[in-house]
Amino acid sequence: MARRRQTADLPITPPDPDGSEALYLQLVRSIEDGIRTGRLRVGQRLPAERTLAADLRVSRTTVTGAYQELEARGLLRGHVGRGTVVVGAPPGARPSTLPWSQRGSALALRAAPASLGALRHRPDVIAFDNGWPDPALYPVEALDRLLERLPGRGTPEIYLSAPPPGDPYLRRVIADWLATRGIRTEPEGVLITSGAQQGVNVLARALVAPGDVVLTEASTFQCALVAFRWAGADVVGVPVDHDGVLPDAFEEAVERYRPKLAYLIPTFHNPTGAVLSRERRHRVLELAARSRVPVVESDLYGEIFFEDTPPPTLKAQDHGGLVLYQGSFSKIAVPGLRVGWIVAPVEAMPTLTIAKEFVDLHTPALTQRLAAAFVESPQLERHLASLRAECRLRRDQLVGCLRQHCPRLAFRLPSGGYYLWAQLPAPLTAAELSPIAAEHGVAFRPGPQFSPGGGGQDHIRLCFAALGPKAITEGARRLGQALAEAEEKLGGTGRRAPAAATSVV
Amino acid sequence: MARRRQTADLPITPPDPDGSEALYLQLVRSIEDGIRTGRLRVGQRLPAERTLAADLRVSRTTVTGAYQELEARGLLRGHVGRGTVVVGAPPGARPSTLPWSQRGSALALRAAPASLGALRHRPDVIAFDNGWPDPALYPVEALDRLLERLPGRGTPEIYLSAPPPGDPYLRRVIADWLATRGIRTEPEGVLITSGAQQGVNVLARALVAPGDVVLTEASTFQCALVAFRWAGADVVGVPVDHDGVLPDAFEEAVERYRPKLAYLIPTFHNPTGAVLSRERRHRVLELAARSRVPVVESDLYGEIFFEDTPPPTLKAQDHGGLVLYQGSFSKIAVPGLRVGWIVAPVEAMPTLTIAKEFVDLHTPALTQRLAAAFVESPQLERHLASLRAECRLRRDQLVGCLRQHCPRLAFRLPSGGYYLWAQLPAPLTAAELSPIAAEHGVAFRPGPQFSPGGGGQDHIRLCFAALGPKAITEGARRLGQALAEAEEKLGGTGRRAPAAATSVV
Repeated sequence: MARRRQTADLPITPPDPDGSEALYLQLVRSIEDGIRTGRLRVGQRLPAERTLAADLRVSRTTVTGAYQELEARGLLRGHVGRGTVVVGAPPGARPSTLPWSQRGSALALRAAPASLGALRHRPDVIAFDNGWPDPALYPVEALDRLLERLPGRGTPEIYLSAPPPGDPYLRRVIADWLATRGIRTEPEGVLITSGAQQGVNVLARALVAPGDVVLTEASTFQCALVAFRWAGADVVGVPVDHDGVLPDAFEEAVERYRPKLAYLIPTFHNPTGAVLSRERRHRVLELAARSRVPVVESDLYGEIFFEDTPPPTLKAQDHGGLVLYQGSFSKIAVPGLRVGWIVAPVEAMPTLTIAKEFVDLHTPALTQRLAAAFVESPQLERHLASLRAECRLRRDQLVGCLRQHCPRLAFRLPSGGYYLWAQLPAPLTAAELSPIAAEHGVAFRPGPQFSPGGGGQDHIRLCFAALGPKAITEGARRLGQALAEAEEKLGGTGRRAPAAATSVV
Repeated sequence: MARRRQTADLPITPPDPDGSEALYLQLVRSIEDGIRTGRLRVGQRLPAERTLAADLRVSRTTVTGAYQELEARGLLRGHVGRGTVVVGAPPGARPSTLPWSQRGSALALRAAPASLGALRHRPDVIAFDNGWPDPALYPVEALDRLLERLPGRGTPEIYLSAPPPGDPYLRRVIADWLATRGIRTEPEGVLITSGAQQGVNVLARALVAPGDVVLTEASTFQCALVAFRWAGADVVGVPVDHDGVLPDAFEEAVERYRPKLAYLIPTFHNPTGAVLSRERRHRVLELAARSRVPVVESDLYGEIFFEDTPPPTLKAQDHGGLVLYQGSFSKIAVPGLRVGWIVAPVEAMPTLTIAKEFVDLHTPALTQRLAAAFVESPQLERHLASLRAECRLRRDQLVGCLRQHCPRLAFRLPSGGYYLWAQLPAPLTAAELSPIAAEHGVAFRPGPQFSPGGGGQDHIRLCFAALGPKAITEGARRLGQALAEAEEKLGGTGRRAPAAATSVV
């Protein structure tokens, strides 16, 4: 026993070589007993395998086997460089006594079908249903170099609690950059958000109270729907065509619902790809001014144009201080930094800042500075040029493949953005097609996810930005097979002529 | 005119040396006209000063003067390395036509007094009113080294859209670290949030519906109050003493209000500094199990103990899967990364994940990885040891100075955390003292900000973690002067004996 010096204080009995049980199982039982009786505490570190083996006069394999078995039972956990620690009974062994799945708020449950979790696929599924650029297009090298020499590196500065409305450096950079896009703002009119999705939550919290009405296009960014509903709003969709929201319908809705605000995506609309025409932009602004309804302009895709530059943003023509403009780093550079911005009349900033502050205090200075350095560098414009070219290639690729493999899909050519909005041959619905498409290994976003009223059943959204040419081709082929199978299942094709290419909604 | 080759296409008239106006003012007028008539577009870049001067045959000073004047008028903006750009009319010249200050939601307005904006001080004010560690104590060097060799650097990985519940690496690291604190969880039971403040918003959104009741201690983290109200909850405070929440009162409140959940800060309570006793922890857990009321345990300060380690967390004793445990990087390392965590029964994770996803999609991979690397490194424990020692010194310093300069303040010695909760001599209120203290150059958080019902008028919270010894001494001296002046103004001192040192709430 003289050799047990290193682990002598541990309540671990040496296995008996003559015992009826395997050595490693004896060791398992001994350690389990120690934990059960409290002599081995949760959080306590056990000796290294080599040490324990030597002390117990067993082979290392015995100890390894015992530790592995105890890990499998959830009592130990080993981690490289820090040894093996007692973590107690496996959590799975004691299921919660509360029915958590029934405890979610109604709003959380309602949001669930549009969540990323609900879209999780088998790895072999071709995913047209996300909204990100292809990681192969990320400006990784540029960002990495900028991170190296970020202002504030090596000082407490980038670890400080930043001001809730944003890092002054980024606010100034965004103001300067937007000036080159015709949007005039002081840095004090820029609020930094942790992505545009948080931005719409901040706007909803700041400006919307339960029972208020918010107008959107008939289909819209699904996360905006959730954000406004979470603030207690009734969301009302306004009809659109391929030039965006219909001004007369918009006017009617404003008069009828007296909305607290309107949320629009005038340029490369998500999900339809539509661009609000110049004339309609003027009418929307006029109406907003006359009825004193502020307009949130979500402009995440405006830089991703394939032909002409799109018409000036609403914000660039906002003479009355009525437009709250949203932009984001996610669609023009990388999504993972979670940096977005709201440009607002300075008079609105105190309220917006309070909402931002109570949402998450502030966006990290580290990610803000990195985004600022990138926007300020010549890299951004270079990256945008290549992103436009790449997304255009992918759009063309998708369009060509759809025409070949899915001739009964009707769609317009999007002139920018990430998405193609396609109408299914009647009477097929997205809900009917989804499971069949999943069987064929292809996924899309069904239209109703974008609709405040559950419309758009006959539409699907396909994202072409995230996939390479091979995946796009194969995805379109699978979609074609799924469509054919779905139409056959539903009683044969040809009950209706292919939808006219002009009907986008 | 042959020399005007570089700027000949610009509508800028060369100044007339014989004109009645100074050359630079002529140039200002010319450029202003160009903008007004649209011949110079917003976003257009103007020539470098040197180039324009040469082309117009004027001195460079003339051009510099003109550009400066136009910048002052808000028409141009110059930035280093990118030249001078037309930014149009100054935004201030066209105030918004909407009364934004009246457009805020009632909840945003209600949150305003507790916001950081409302606490903004003159630079000479000694601020006992924040809640951060002293930047001088930040582990900047360690973090900076870890950032250098962060897993995923140089790959798209850290710029990808991370999974909503968190980076798998950080989830595992947190699970492992908490195991050393007696909390058993799989990585799948860890949800990463952008700080604990966002965490409580996520919990509120996931689990609370309008009209639900949430129980808290009689005073609590002010941002939790806002988060629960934003979800539509009625927040009810339960009486406490220096051992934390009163179990009988808690039981009564549970029976009376049938709350959706209880939110408690058992260890080094914010703002009172109280530690819930072992016995009361058992009773709270028993009651939660019996009444099936989940408990959110906010444990941001538990590591900052000055004497004995505090009693085991509720989560460590949570056999029924009733506790949702919150932790954060902000109080134990640096606040600016915005990384926090919720440990929940795995059955509750789908709902929490949906709420997190629709709040801001995910916390950046970059900040998550950096936090993970720090928690996994030996630096964390080293840093915690020094943070405890430093905070203890600061507590002692504050306590000594208060005894000397503010003898009529009553308080208990906090045994951990960042805060001292002091009772004012009757009938003085925090609201009365605040403006006088501001005049004396010292700030604190008034008690009512922490109270769901507006109680705590006779209490103030002083944070000792953020200030160095000199500032603490001077701050206490100023507070003493302010107290003396306030008591005199309110009709002389001595109307009541100093409050007994046992009354903490």
